[in-house]
Amino acid sequence: MFDDDDLRCFSMLIEAPRNAEILGSVKIYDVQKVLKLESSELETPLLRCITNEEIEEVLERLVVIIPVKNEKINLLDGVLRAIPQKCKIIVVSNSSRMKQDLFKMEEDVVRRFYRVTKHPIMLIHQKDPGMAISYKEVGFSSILDGDGLVRDGKAEGMVTGLLIAKYLKKDFVGFIDADNYFPGAVNEYVRDYAAGLCMSKSPYAMIRLHWKHKPKIVKRKLYFKKWGRVSEITNRYLNLLLANQTGFETDIIKTGNAGEHAMTMKLASIMNFSTGYSIEPYQLIYLLEEFGRGETEYAEAANAGIEVFQIETLNPHLHEEKGEKHVKGMMMDSLSTIFHSRLTNKYLKTRIIEELKSNKVVESDKEIKKNLIIPSIKDIDGKKFMKKLEESSDTFVNFLWNGN
Amino acid sequence: MFDDDDLRCFSMLIEAPRNAEILGSVKIYDVQKVLKLESSELETPLLRCITNEEIEEVLERLVVIIPVKNEKINLLDGVLRAIPQKCKIIVVSNSSRMKQDLFKMEEDVVRRFYRVTKHPIMLIHQKDPGMAISYKEVGFSSILDGDGLVRDGKAEGMVTGLLIAKYLKKDFVGFIDADNYFPGAVNEYVRDYAAGLCMSKSPYAMIRLHWKHKPKIVKRKLYFKKWGRVSEITNRYLNLLLANQTGFETDIIKTGNAGEHAMTMKLASIMNFSTGYSIEPYQLIYLLEEFGRGETEYAEAANAGIEVFQIETLNPHLHEEKGEKHVKGMMMDSLSTIFHSRLTNKYLKTRIIEELKSNKVVESDKEIKKNLIIPSIKDIDGKKFMKKLEESSDTFVNFLWNGN
Repeated sequence: MFDDDDLRCFSMLIEAPRNAEILGSVKIYDVQKVLKLESSELETPLLRCITNEEIEEVLERLVVIIPVKNEKINLLDGVLRAIPQKCKIIVVSNSSRMKQDLFKMEEDVVRRFYRVTKHPIMLIHQKDPGMAISYKEVGFSSILDGDGLVRDGKAEGMVTGLLIAKYLKKDFVGFIDADNYFPGAVNEYVRDYAAGLCMSKSPYAMIRLHWKHKPKIVKRKLYFKKWGRVSEITNRYLNLLLANQTGFETDIIKTGNAGEHAMTMKLASIMNFSTGYSIEPYQLIYLLEEFGRGETEYAEAANAGIEVFQIETLNPHLHEEKGEKHVKGMMMDSLSTIFHSRLTNKYLKTRIIEELKSNKVVESDKEIKKNLIIPSIKDIDGKKFMKKLEESSDTFVNFLWNGN
Repeated sequence: MFDDDDLRCFSMLIEAPRNAEILGSVKIYDVQKVLKLESSELETPLLRCITNEEIEEVLERLVVIIPVKNEKINLLDGVLRAIPQKCKIIVVSNSSRMKQDLFKMEEDVVRRFYRVTKHPIMLIHQKDPGMAISYKEVGFSSILDGDGLVRDGKAEGMVTGLLIAKYLKKDFVGFIDADNYFPGAVNEYVRDYAAGLCMSKSPYAMIRLHWKHKPKIVKRKLYFKKWGRVSEITNRYLNLLLANQTGFETDIIKTGNAGEHAMTMKLASIMNFSTGYSIEPYQLIYLLEEFGRGETEYAEAANAGIEVFQIETLNPHLHEEKGEKHVKGMMMDSLSTIFHSRLTNKYLKTRIIEELKSNKVVESDKEIKKNLIIPSIKDIDGKKFMKKLEESSDTFVNFLWNGN
């Protein structure tokens, strides 16, 4: 009834990258559009056809990490229901517990989700004292704040997710935001990650999603913007930084602020992470700094090469609007991480200062503070961390090991 | 690498219907929520778990019909790219060809889509004189207007699609609107159709989609409405009409205006269709009139039973806003089709008149005109129709037979 021929039939159709920029061991591919969610297998040099079989194989080795902070509870519920069946889910929440205990609501959603679907999932709160204790236990105190708890911030939540994924011995990790309105789009994003990971030839790869459109409300109508305001600026300066090194101007980087991204665990384990809104652009800067110049402590990765894929989704991206303050913070953090890169020359620094001034983000260059960096998790004993976490946490909801 | 066990793993998780209303041979099930797009197989009396295998088998036998009229060309492009691979696509356009030739743009999109994806698809314009000639050839002139062309209207486009599907000897037919913003949602809709068709025990079944939410723009923000204004009213009066017959009040009908719906070809072939905005509510009225009272010319269908499933999608429904005029027209057509049903008693008629007056749609009951009815296609020779169409049409773009 269902034979091998039928199976090979289904695949995702995606453009082949038209070109790539190379700096040292880092290869950044041009944006590739998803052309069709399901297609028959086609052979042409300009298209990649990734079979369902290949995608499912990657999904089985992929953990989805969802950082949550005060998002509408219905949105989280929808996002969970869209994650492909084979991916385990790690939700790291930093939602408010004062006044109204939003975490309690998230816990209810996660428990109900597991009860109905038996999908392996875990949830933990970032401010759980047990998490801080576990970080201390493994000698990673740099992630703690003055009160001895894990710092606020999405990066800190993401790193916690990574550490748990490391313990799970998964090969790939993908991040999904919890403020997505369309479950169907989320489902595509995770499959896009898998498609990208299928295309990579190196065990050190990163997949960054580029939105087809980002609908905004303009005069009571939806207007389909192609570029976010900050994204456009971030990409411009990242490309200038790259041009600085290669000597050739380029516009290859189109996903500087890509919140939706995935990595091989091998790559995620050796990366440092920046904090605040700079986490996403800093990933590219870190790669260019560490692997763009020939001197690195990671010889294996340098030899294998680092591949960065940028995939344009078929679905538009409709998420919660965060407002003007968010926009300014994002611009500040994104540009300061470029400003403080050791690859940035004086000319580029001057242009960044002008940009921030003209957008009324800073008045002088003194205000362009360096973002805090979280060191890589490469030396942390994931097993020790998890053992302590299970002992000492009081927010840990764990349906991961039960599942499969 | 990919064994039977793995395959059985994937399935759509959907609520079992909690109850149903029965009138004669018609069984209308309560709304069933889609709980998860992909799940492992679970056995519980309250859930239906429909395997990928079952769904794919139905998709192969399903044609997707897309009626188009002046929708944004990008939206059509996205919708096409989301249709599951095994479903052939029939696009029936009534887009304007004056001033700007929108049909030409649609033709370009369809040709490009086929060239890149090889997905079997066809396109025809409703006002093609060749289509009118073909309808005359098979003795179905009631679909023509005063100029001897096929009438304007979505119903006329849908019926044309049905006729072509009949020629293709497909078992199922599903309708998708071309103004959908989210390809990922469209993909779910077609799978929901398949899931519904899998659940039906009768060869005479209809699947109607109910939106989880319908986002509207309210004060520069998206507000997730559960009920459309007209839908709420249409459903209320359809339920009253049903209660009229059974003697028990009910709220079971929640998809009176469901534009997104699918049917078995056996059912579609024997149904009459109403025109204008009344096409969707009339489908239910037709079924109740024809099969609710015991006297029918379709003994086979009455014996097998007619099943109506209502499925609540996981994705919200975000589509083009059509404005106030559209809303009034929809209310008028929907309520007039209930008003003129022979199942409607005097009390219900009075209430409908009051409703239309209070919404400023009519001033007197004289204005509640009967909607034009298109007779069923059961006696039309599909082969003859298609042969004539291929000979005489000059807008027919046919990549259907080439495909597979």
